[in-house]
Amino acid sequence: MSFALDARLEADTVALGDLALCRVLATKDARFPWLVLVPRRAGAVEIADLSPPDRAALIEETAAAATALKTETQADKINVGALGNLVAQLHVHVVARRRGDAVWPGPVWGSGPARPYERAALGAFTRAMARRLGLAPPA
Amino acid sequence: MSFALDARLEADTVALGDLALCRVLATKDARFPWLVLVPRRAGAVEIADLSPPDRAALIEETAAAATALKTETQADKINVGALGNLVAQLHVHVVARRRGDAVWPGPVWGSGPARPYERAALGAFTRAMARRLGLAPPA
Repeated sequence: MSFALDARLEADTVALGDLALCRVLATKDARFPWLVLVPRRAGAVEIADLSPPDRAALIEETAAAATALKTETQADKINVGALGNLVAQLHVHVVARRRGDAVWPGPVWGSGPARPYERAALGAFTRAMARRLGLAPPA
Repeated sequence: MSFALDARLEADTVALGDLALCRVLATKDARFPWLVLVPRRAGAVEIADLSPPDRAALIEETAAAATALKTETQADKINVGALGNLVAQLHVHVVARRRGDAVWPGPVWGSGPARPYERAALGAFTRAMARRLGLAPPA
């Protein structure tokens, strides 16, 4: 079984590229600078489904994404979550939060509809994140 | 600066004991079997504040807590989150979820007031988790 991205994750995001373990996605919700890391391992649902080396890679890539987001956006806090109640495929949300943002201090999950990005703003965000994470710019 | 548990985390939980890196807490909310792991590192706020070896330990202990919870409760999904919007001290929530639970499929954070446990039920839960995680039973 080879890795394939869940259709719902694909619909809600744009792909930035691949780190050693994870595909990096940016969520199309202008309310929050928001990355999603998806380990490229077919069938993984829980963090415990990964091997210990893959788990170590996952948390290193999560920390790198968090630092890139925090530096780029000057966020007050990074929120990290692996829920999977709606989409089973293992994925880790890494979200930049600001005091006073749309749902602060509540969680972003289940917080209502996404606000579409201006096209130029989404492009600027994805290019900045790809550059900070050393990813080839998306096609 | 030595490690001390945040007063709010302490008020909302009971302590089960210490793993190699983290103090393990059980949240006093009978709606969800819910553990919280707190790395015993003074001043840590973001996952990126930990060293790589501590990060590897954190995700291993998270996976162990998730597996213990899932096995004990026969949960449908484990939710993992490190938010920190209200309590700055780095802490990782590990929560057993069931289809049809009080807020399914939404997140547990910001989901309204905790429902108190019956005393015997909280004791049974904490003893079971301590046993599965190899922790000395709480005093």
